[in-house]
Amino acid sequence: MCQLLGMSCNTPTDICFSFTGFQKRGGLTDVHKDGWGIAFFEGKGVRQFLDPQPSAHSPLAELVKNYPIKSTNVIAHIRKATQGRVALENTHPFMRELWGSYWIFAHNGNVPDFQPSLQKTFLPVGDTDSERAFCWMMQELKAKYGDQKPSSSDLLQTLSELSKVVGAQGEFNFLLSNGEVLYAHCSTKLFYIVRKAPFTTATLKDHEVTVDFSSVTTAKDCVAIIATAPLTDNEVWTEMAPGNLWMFENGEPVATVVTIPGVKKILSPETCS
Amino acid sequence: MCQLLGMSCNTPTDICFSFTGFQKRGGLTDVHKDGWGIAFFEGKGVRQFLDPQPSAHSPLAELVKNYPIKSTNVIAHIRKATQGRVALENTHPFMRELWGSYWIFAHNGNVPDFQPSLQKTFLPVGDTDSERAFCWMMQELKAKYGDQKPSSSDLLQTLSELSKVVGAQGEFNFLLSNGEVLYAHCSTKLFYIVRKAPFTTATLKDHEVTVDFSSVTTAKDCVAIIATAPLTDNEVWTEMAPGNLWMFENGEPVATVVTIPGVKKILSPETCS
Repeated sequence: MCQLLGMSCNTPTDICFSFTGFQKRGGLTDVHKDGWGIAFFEGKGVRQFLDPQPSAHSPLAELVKNYPIKSTNVIAHIRKATQGRVALENTHPFMRELWGSYWIFAHNGNVPDFQPSLQKTFLPVGDTDSERAFCWMMQELKAKYGDQKPSSSDLLQTLSELSKVVGAQGEFNFLLSNGEVLYAHCSTKLFYIVRKAPFTTATLKDHEVTVDFSSVTTAKDCVAIIATAPLTDNEVWTEMAPGNLWMFENGEPVATVVTIPGVKKILSPETCS
Repeated sequence: MCQLLGMSCNTPTDICFSFTGFQKRGGLTDVHKDGWGIAFFEGKGVRQFLDPQPSAHSPLAELVKNYPIKSTNVIAHIRKATQGRVALENTHPFMRELWGSYWIFAHNGNVPDFQPSLQKTFLPVGDTDSERAFCWMMQELKAKYGDQKPSSSDLLQTLSELSKVVGAQGEFNFLLSNGEVLYAHCSTKLFYIVRKAPFTTATLKDHEVTVDFSSVTTAKDCVAIIATAPLTDNEVWTEMAPGNLWMFENGEPVATVVTIPGVKKILSPETCS
């Protein structure tokens, strides 16, 4: 199963992702055989690392572990191919430009029957249902707002409507960021936690990924982590209600919108103040 | 001065770029102080490495040196900032999607007075004249051809017209690729060479960049290298005539079009056959 991992911070921070587990397990088990990717916003720019290969002995994983990357918004993805062959162009996260910003998207789930009409403003390069859905959402945002970038809150509302459409076709958990905010849609399964200093090391329960937060040192730092499954056993993660789209900004959840009719809107933000 | 480096091959090949010089000199001299970037097409996908930092002790340069990347089209750029501050979003090469393909662009020169009307189909994320010119060219291609991707030859013609417009505003040497062909515009200074097996190691005259072709081993391999200045002293490089746009495909130049009125069209392809 694919896994999503997102991060929203209030300060650009060196956060070293340790892919030790990737390197040991990739290629030995089938868990990561279909690649992985990670994208870091640095200001308006994006640093994107995509690896369609098994991660055993991956120089890319080694780099990401060692490279001090200052970022406020991060999206990562581990792929287990369901739609689309194993190839670089099918490796998440995907990137497009809209309103003079890069947008990063990663998807967990399966929406093979979502075959929207794409009017060529954004077209998939690969052949995954995920990139198709991403291009459609970008297209619809552009069609609705034209040249004027709306507020993050307006975007939240519109994205919730778009998520509803795609989500009706299957499992549509996703992370989406333009470098300012990070949207997280829980279709079936997604968790989050807000961490403050002092930070420790968080280890994926299954030891596949270790995230080292110890370099985050100032008392004012606030970091929200969103993941398909809780990364740690020793902390209380909030299970996000299916049918809710969340908006994270500066390291905390700031709003939610219901995307499945009848689902209760839930928002109990853990603030940093 | 910025430097361009491009490569077109007839076979996806492991070509290791050795950035030894970068690592030694970056930060010690000012040559590379404003960053460098490289993009490799792998099938339809793109692997892009951007580094706005001095390259001394760069983990990214180390990675690119060690990572076996199979590519038929490569574009690299060393930046000496003239327009736009030193930042990730201003680091070449730039990438956009058009007609379901990624397009990669890098520029050498200076066209600060080129202030086109951008109709929001493609917008710059950073603030360089280079990205602005790239977005404008993408916009014009889309405006002219709509949803139908034209042939590479038709594109050559249209790109020559667009290059003429931008080139009238200053120095506009560039490399552009969609993964199928590589276009190289010589505004003032650009060289190329076609290499066949057996390959050796080519070293930049100033020892800044070493390109190791020794892993290219089959007799049928054909590789065209395009660079701002000849990389080696011991080979004959072809100086591209200013005012010509070249198209490289499968490791060799296949066509040229004049972009400066009165300039003689030059094409004496070194074929691999």
